[in-house]
Amino acid sequence: MKFKGRDIASIKDFTREEIDYILKITGAMEPIAKSGSDMLRGKILATLFFEPSTRTRLSFEAAINKLGGTTIGFAEPKVAAIKKGENLADTIRVVEKYADVLVLRHPLEGAARLASEFAKVPVINAGSGAEEHPTQALLDLYTILKEKGRIDGLNITLMGDLRYGRTVHSLAYALSLYKVKLFLVSPELLRMRREVSDAIKKRITIVEGTGVEEFLPETDVLYVTRIQEERFPDPAEYAKVQGTYKLGVETLRDAREDMIIMHPLPRVDEIDHEVDDTPHARYFQQVWNGIVTRMALLALILGAIE
Amino acid sequence: MKFKGRDIASIKDFTREEIDYILKITGAMEPIAKSGSDMLRGKILATLFFEPSTRTRLSFEAAINKLGGTTIGFAEPKVAAIKKGENLADTIRVVEKYADVLVLRHPLEGAARLASEFAKVPVINAGSGAEEHPTQALLDLYTILKEKGRIDGLNITLMGDLRYGRTVHSLAYALSLYKVKLFLVSPELLRMRREVSDAIKKRITIVEGTGVEEFLPETDVLYVTRIQEERFPDPAEYAKVQGTYKLGVETLRDAREDMIIMHPLPRVDEIDHEVDDTPHARYFQQVWNGIVTRMALLALILGAIE
Amino acid sequence: MKFKGRDIASIKDFTREEIDYILKITGAMEPIAKSGSDMLRGKILATLFFEPSTRTRLSFEAAINKLGGTTIGFAEPKVAAIKKGENLADTIRVVEKYADVLVLRHPLEGAARLASEFAKVPVINAGSGAEEHPTQALLDLYTILKEKGRIDGLNITLMGDLRYGRTVHSLAYALSLYKVKLFLVSPELLRMRREVSDAIKKRITIVEGTGVEEFLPETDVLYVTRIQEERFPDPAEYAKVQGTYKLGVETLRDAREDMIIMHPLPRVDEIDHEVDDTPHARYFQQVWNGIVTRMALLALILGAIE
Repeated sequence: MKFKGRDIASIKDFTREEIDYILKITGAMEPIAKSGSDMLRGKILATLFFEPSTRTRLSFEAAINKLGGTTIGFAEPKVAAIKKGENLADTIRVVEKYADVLVLRHPLEGAARLASEFAKVPVINAGSGAEEHPTQALLDLYTILKEKGRIDGLNITLMGDLRYGRTVHSLAYALSLYKVKLFLVSPELLRMRREVSDAIKKRITIVEGTGVEEFLPETDVLYVTRIQEERFPDPAEYAKVQGTYKLGVETLRDAREDMIIMHPLPRVDEIDHEVDDTPHARYFQQVWNGIVTRMALLALILGAIE
Repeated sequence: MKFKGRDIASIKDFTREEIDYILKITGAMEPIAKSGSDMLRGKILATLFFEPSTRTRLSFEAAINKLGGTTIGFAEPKVAAIKKGENLADTIRVVEKYADVLVLRHPLEGAARLASEFAKVPVINAGSGAEEHPTQALLDLYTILKEKGRIDGLNITLMGDLRYGRTVHSLAYALSLYKVKLFLVSPELLRMRREVSDAIKKRITIVEGTGVEEFLPETDVLYVTRIQEERFPDPAEYAKVQGTYKLGVETLRDAREDMIIMHPLPRVDEIDHEVDDTPHARYFQQVWNGIVTRMALLALILGAIE
Repeated sequence: MKFKGRDIASIKDFTREEIDYILKITGAMEPIAKSGSDMLRGKILATLFFEPSTRTRLSFEAAINKLGGTTIGFAEPKVAAIKKGENLADTIRVVEKYADVLVLRHPLEGAARLASEFAKVPVINAGSGAEEHPTQALLDLYTILKEKGRIDGLNITLMGDLRYGRTVHSLAYALSLYKVKLFLVSPELLRMRREVSDAIKKRITIVEGTGVEEFLPETDVLYVTRIQEERFPDPAEYAKVQGTYKLGVETLRDAREDMIIMHPLPRVDEIDHEVDDTPHARYFQQVWNGIVTRMALLALILGAIE
């Protein structure tokens, strides 16, 4: 396995063995995240956020800082060069000179792949269009492993917007490398994209439904995402489904005692605040896990760890 | 006295003894601010500015940099998660994972207090609503002590907008812990909030007036703040008072020779530029004092100094 | 030669001997830019960008990071203090307290000079109005020297908008200190400002024209800049010239084999993407050269190198 110099454009670029190795290194980052390290001293990470995302950006910045490196970048699409009409390929060929690794968030699918073709330094996809968010998928896997002790053998329910949420696409692909059973719960309009479900169906069992209740008694991990009103052509359509996709303590009556609830955040009202105090909630722990996962990835692709 | 892990939500959380100790440590930071230090190496400060404030943000960033730490954060309210409707409590529970200390500026009173309740790491209030700006009050006290050699026994005049200025509220509270006499000069409409003047009146003498001239011969420290036109319902009302609250060299004829003039900055035209060259002006020195004060606070609450 | 503490407001502040020395130190920075250094450990660079410029800002940030220093600053003109109406002199007298060196980009000519008069720390002009961009001129000289082995004796063609482009103004002045022949190619409306061409004409030969073809067979360095439509009062005027100022592979038929093409970037369509793959293209190398040039300047004015 060779990670040094590699891009992280898609979760599909990794084998199960490679993902397992990343998760192992992530575990080893836990004490380092607390003590700090000089492992990446002198290394510069550039954050190129053509779409705002405070959390993901801060998570990468915290990760490289904890390893002794520094950051430069921009967090707004309205930056000078872009306003002047420069294309992405030129931007990448400029910015790669400033940094040892590029972290890119872009509204268009394929942007990270394009960037990785032009950059001589590694490019990490921090979300491109509705398609991919590979580092989120890795931190989600790490959270499951850390909390449940294993990934194989679990029943995992993905609930909410499975059509436009890049997080669930990358996660579903990643999970299909493990021996899991996947329940997919969404309104008809927001069902998992056919291309994603077709691909993972070849490897694991998936069961689709429109209500979470039927799957709860069997679920080990419940992964919730937000349903955005603007996805519905008709407000009446939205009104019909929205109540069904809100998780409250009463919804959890039939859940397994050790079921964990995850969410990529930010949430609006799809998880009631009362749920935060139940033993199921893990969504704030995911944030910490995101830092250690990104530390592991940075250390690997910058060659500080083999 | 224990500072490690403490929040700095309000100046009212500190006793006089604690403030005196902070001022002593601030003095000790002066040479370190020039030479630099590794005291906070590996520590991350997150700036969460829901309201823009370049000066205060840069002052904190300079302070942690000078102690060897690093910063992450945002300086605009229009950041992704917030646009998506996330509440402050969730934002705090996320961001506290990224950093060792949070610095929060927020348009609402009580925001810093709320944040400190949710965060496991220390929260520093960098201005919340019209209510509080405790680190500004501390740097103001440090400036007075450094310039006049003492705080007890001084006559201090606060002039300008005493109603909406958070700076003067925190400062007036802080000064009431010392043996000072306070002159409060403002237009009727912008008099010191009753709740503030009532509280400090129990401990020290305050005299209110609408013109600075009568107090100048007795004043040791003249603290000027800006009067914003938008505070007046009627432009005619504003026109009436504005001339009175502009400080020029001729206003200072009757001032004590060693009287110092302070201002939290930015100024617009409430202090004439001619005053900058008089021996009274100290407002640009306050900026430097702000860095050393914040270095002291960071070193204390992060446990680098006891 | 003394660089410590000096401002870099204009390229005109430097003698040829000084520029030659800067270019020599820049060469020495090449290995350091790859390995990193602690030469400026503890030093803080403040970027004050009143006009956005992602590239120039990131280049300075990368430069100080590679020397072990840190950055603070703002990249948007809509920052708090400025909105509140503070003038530039006050802003500078505040910000100089936070940093060891200020890097200023401002829409007005003369802004950098004004700032350098108020600041006790060195100020670097990162572009002011249409007038000056001295660090770009230095990196351009360094690129020519690195690629051609010398500057004296070369024929250099500046092509595009020679009237409003600050880059070409600073570069033309800098080149006039060397024994070069300058060809100036632009539409009539965008001819080199008379004050610039008059000044350099005293020292070197310049030949003006409106088409690049006639100069290509003699050109060693072709420096292309963008022509902006908004400079033309009449869209028909723009339509007439635009085709002439686009560089394609066929334009290069009569060029010398070892002619190099430079561009300050970003480009829009004035250099065809096919040209990128010819042996002439050097514009992306300029970006790297910008980092090492700025490292040299920072090391010199902050006194890390004599």
